[in-house]
Amino acid sequence: MSARHTVADHLMDRLAELGAGRIFGVPGDYSLGMLDHVVRHPVVEWTGCTNELNAGYAADGYARLRGVAALCTTFGVGELSAINAVAGSYAEHVPVVHVVGAPALTKQALRPPVHHTLGDGEFGHFLAMHADITCARTVLTPGNAVAEIDRVLVAVRDQRLPGYLLLAADVAEAPVEQVTTPLPPPVDGTDPEALAGFTEAARRLLGEAGSIAEVGVLAGLLVHRFDAGDRLAALLRDGAVPHATTPWAKSLLDESASGFAGTYSGAAGSTEQTRRVVEDAAALVLAGVQFTDLNSGLFTQRITRSRTIELGADAASVGAATFAPVTLPAALEALAPLVAALPAATEPDAAAAPAATAAADDTPLDQDTLWTEVSGALRAGDVVLADQGTCFYGMAPHRLPTGVTFVGQPLWASIGYTLPALLGVCTAAPGRRGVLLIGDGAAQTTVQELSTVMRLGLPALVVVVDNDGYTVERAIHGPDEPYNDIARWDWTAVPAMFGGGARATAVRATTAGELRAALACTDPDGFTLVQAVVPRDDVPELLATLTRALGVAPQP
Amino acid sequence: MSARHTVADHLMDRLAELGAGRIFGVPGDYSLGMLDHVVRHPVVEWTGCTNELNAGYAADGYARLRGVAALCTTFGVGELSAINAVAGSYAEHVPVVHVVGAPALTKQALRPPVHHTLGDGEFGHFLAMHADITCARTVLTPGNAVAEIDRVLVAVRDQRLPGYLLLAADVAEAPVEQVTTPLPPPVDGTDPEALAGFTEAARRLLGEAGSIAEVGVLAGLLVHRFDAGDRLAALLRDGAVPHATTPWAKSLLDESASGFAGTYSGAAGSTEQTRRVVEDAAALVLAGVQFTDLNSGLFTQRITRSRTIELGADAASVGAATFAPVTLPAALEALAPLVAALPAATEPDAAAAPAATAAADDTPLDQDTLWTEVSGALRAGDVVLADQGTCFYGMAPHRLPTGVTFVGQPLWASIGYTLPALLGVCTAAPGRRGVLLIGDGAAQTTVQELSTVMRLGLPALVVVVDNDGYTVERAIHGPDEPYNDIARWDWTAVPAMFGGGARATAVRATTAGELRAALACTDPDGFTLVQAVVPRDDVPELLATLTRALGVAPQP
Repeated sequence: MSARHTVADHLMDRLAELGAGRIFGVPGDYSLGMLDHVVRHPVVEWTGCTNELNAGYAADGYARLRGVAALCTTFGVGELSAINAVAGSYAEHVPVVHVVGAPALTKQALRPPVHHTLGDGEFGHFLAMHADITCARTVLTPGNAVAEIDRVLVAVRDQRLPGYLLLAADVAEAPVEQVTTPLPPPVDGTDPEALAGFTEAARRLLGEAGSIAEVGVLAGLLVHRFDAGDRLAALLRDGAVPHATTPWAKSLLDESASGFAGTYSGAAGSTEQTRRVVEDAAALVLAGVQFTDLNSGLFTQRITRSRTIELGADAASVGAATFAPVTLPAALEALAPLVAALPAATEPDAAAAPAATAAADDTPLDQDTLWTEVSGALRAGDVVLADQGTCFYGMAPHRLPTGVTFVGQPLWASIGYTLPALLGVCTAAPGRRGVLLIGDGAAQTTVQELSTVMRLGLPALVVVVDNDGYTVERAIHGPDEPYNDIARWDWTAVPAMFGGGARATAVRATTAGELRAALACTDPDGFTLVQAVVPRDDVPELLATLTRALGVAPQP
Repeated sequence: MSARHTVADHLMDRLAELGAGRIFGVPGDYSLGMLDHVVRHPVVEWTGCTNELNAGYAADGYARLRGVAALCTTFGVGELSAINAVAGSYAEHVPVVHVVGAPALTKQALRPPVHHTLGDGEFGHFLAMHADITCARTVLTPGNAVAEIDRVLVAVRDQRLPGYLLLAADVAEAPVEQVTTPLPPPVDGTDPEALAGFTEAARRLLGEAGSIAEVGVLAGLLVHRFDAGDRLAALLRDGAVPHATTPWAKSLLDESASGFAGTYSGAAGSTEQTRRVVEDAAALVLAGVQFTDLNSGLFTQRITRSRTIELGADAASVGAATFAPVTLPAALEALAPLVAALPAATEPDAAAAPAATAAADDTPLDQDTLWTEVSGALRAGDVVLADQGTCFYGMAPHRLPTGVTFVGQPLWASIGYTLPALLGVCTAAPGRRGVLLIGDGAAQTTVQELSTVMRLGLPALVVVVDNDGYTVERAIHGPDEPYNDIARWDWTAVPAMFGGGARATAVRATTAGELRAALACTDPDGFTLVQAVVPRDDVPELLATLTRALGVAPQP
């Protein structure tokens, strides 16, 4: 290793600057040289994963907590193994920089049929396959590398979407001047006239509301992605404004605080209180909400446009009038004083969650008891990941304690995603416990990444819902068909097989008492896996409602 | 289920007709209805896998033995998880039909942001991503389905490349007339004049050879893919013509038969005998050979064009003259009588493989002993899969017993591929034992599919080379770098964790004696895993030669 500064070093410097302190991936011979620059960088760390899809999921999880993440794979085989994760990051607005190690440009020029290619001398196939799932992409050369790295990273940072860098082995080693100026700061693209128009229109609509208590706020994912949570919290005035979140935005707002009315899933999955706060508000603020099928109770939301102020990433509307460009943070900032100026109302009570009756110790475990007990075992600081099956729907209605972060993937909905994402969130938030909730079918897809979680000694509680198959699919179609069956595994063997070490334990729970005991005695800094056995066809109420709706639809 | 014939039924009928008797995949809500037609079909069977990449690898393995295979995944998340496997099938000329279950066309028309999409109302992104890695693809509709299914399947069959069918849930259920005529048979596109010209030129070149023993044949992968092994064998006249194979085509010809001169890897990995047969032949027939880096000792082949007859998929050349279209089977058929007409020579001896001295029982296991012992334990009928690391290079120089099939992936070279491919080959060839040879790092990427192998009760011997990391990468670059480290697993826990049942066993071997004992007492119809512990940095001689060459290259 020479001490000269190279393209790879510049890339590491910029990733560190953005807060991507860890690169997830799998090495390959085209990327090995570059990885020397990773492991020698003073800030950036390497996290080797068991496969590339898992590495992509881990990077996605990391980015959800830290605002940006990096993924490094090798040409062809590696990048395509990870591409589903990158597409998921795109769908769910997660900024991940995908760095792909490629054969040297000097070699590419000769167009040889080398390994990890289609054998046709073409090296552009796989970049092209990333066109629809990245906001920026480039082939780095010694001449363009600094400018192009900066361009792609700024796009990733500002658009909250993945980007792609094809970094040939020789380009990684090419010398560059060490850059000492930071990346250009984000620019808020709001047009003052559009903002003024929006503000005036919003003032009129809010004025009709009468009091703060007549306003409602439904908070969506983009508030989190555009880092506007504080601005939204300011608007809520300590809970004086009744508010709810969509499932996709769960944990964006403190679910134990005053004024929080629950998770809104349209007619299919909302309590009456939640429904009222959203649908009956005299003035409703939709903040960064996108209604997708699984984020709206299958499009059963009932929003009256004439009473609604809707804030998107780059446009804001009041009733039928749209004002653009107005960014989400700018619109929230403009709204806050308008809301504050409204007459106060009696302080609304935080709706008490209906007290769950604890199931007797010897009650066989079911979905209802499982989620009640898991919710009760959460503590401030936990990062909860719920896979897009019974776990997501089981947890969605439960109120989370203050300071708990919730991660789900209801749009892309790739089963197994959350297991490697556990690795990502635990490394992104040192000291916080990761709580993974996942079905057995989903966990089978990505199980090996538990090995990395244990290898790094990360504090984690893993609940594998053992219900003998793809229960969410059974609920939709073919409850007894063989395609919904899976092999039965002994999940308690995970620590022994995957090199868990002394701080890793696993237990099986078939009753409420066994589950409570398992959850109560977890090592706060260790790794605990609970194999929670529940009936095969038991599903959470919210999922039952949704799948009934899916089932009666003329065609899925 | 109504008894009417549907698009899904037609698809199943055609897959059965082509010999794809098994569909590998993972169910998803957009494909569940279609899967009803799979499980109710009289011929086609469903094989659920633990994840989609593994399903794609399994389908690839099945197709290598049966000539065609089918893969079924769900929209977006499923198909993109499998896309690396499909790209590998494309690179390695493996015909796999990828059927993707999509939201109903009636739903797509409304452009809703449903799950497994990017949320933008577009349903064409993922088909577009398959453009460069499939030979034919289509969006099925009720009107085009029969014609388009037939078109894509014929292309897959005749071009030996993957194809892609986007099958919306409502289209799968659309009624169609039951078709009773078979697919049009393959057409040999050879032009008679081109063939005559080729034959005449070949006759002249062969005439200069003097005798059959002065001719050499190097057999490549495409002979296998275009099902021309019998024609090639006829040309060899019971071994009177000295011949070799490339590593990619290993096991295409009987490696224990007279006249077989070994595996040719250019200067980097050929014995003197092999090298002579190929490089010094007075007339060399290159039959379906593509020299890729790992199939040529890093392009160290030495072929003298003026003495060479080269047969490609659709063109044949003699010296500098090319004749096209001339298909590989047609060219082989034309060559056979020309070779037969040459004067015979003394029957060449089959070169005796140097007798390996058996290592003493207490000798610590190393790569050399490992591959010698594994080779000795093979028996007729075995299908051997060697992952593209130390296993492939360790096995390449060993002669296989008659009737053994060898599967590797030296062009695409996706680590972990062979583990799910074991499932594919075992289901493709009932009664034959699958022998999987794989490194620990590679096996970690796809390990969960061993569960399906055990679940289906397939006879398999799995040798996991436990050498504590990515040894092939260590040999290339960074022997002691952390990015080449992996977690240590207890591979003997595989049967217990993955529901192996009574016929599944696993043992650990650290000495030659332990390995011999493990290989000797395997249940011929059961599942046996051997964790073979070898030194971390020990590599087979062929790999050492190649990586030395890679290492000295100015840039990888």
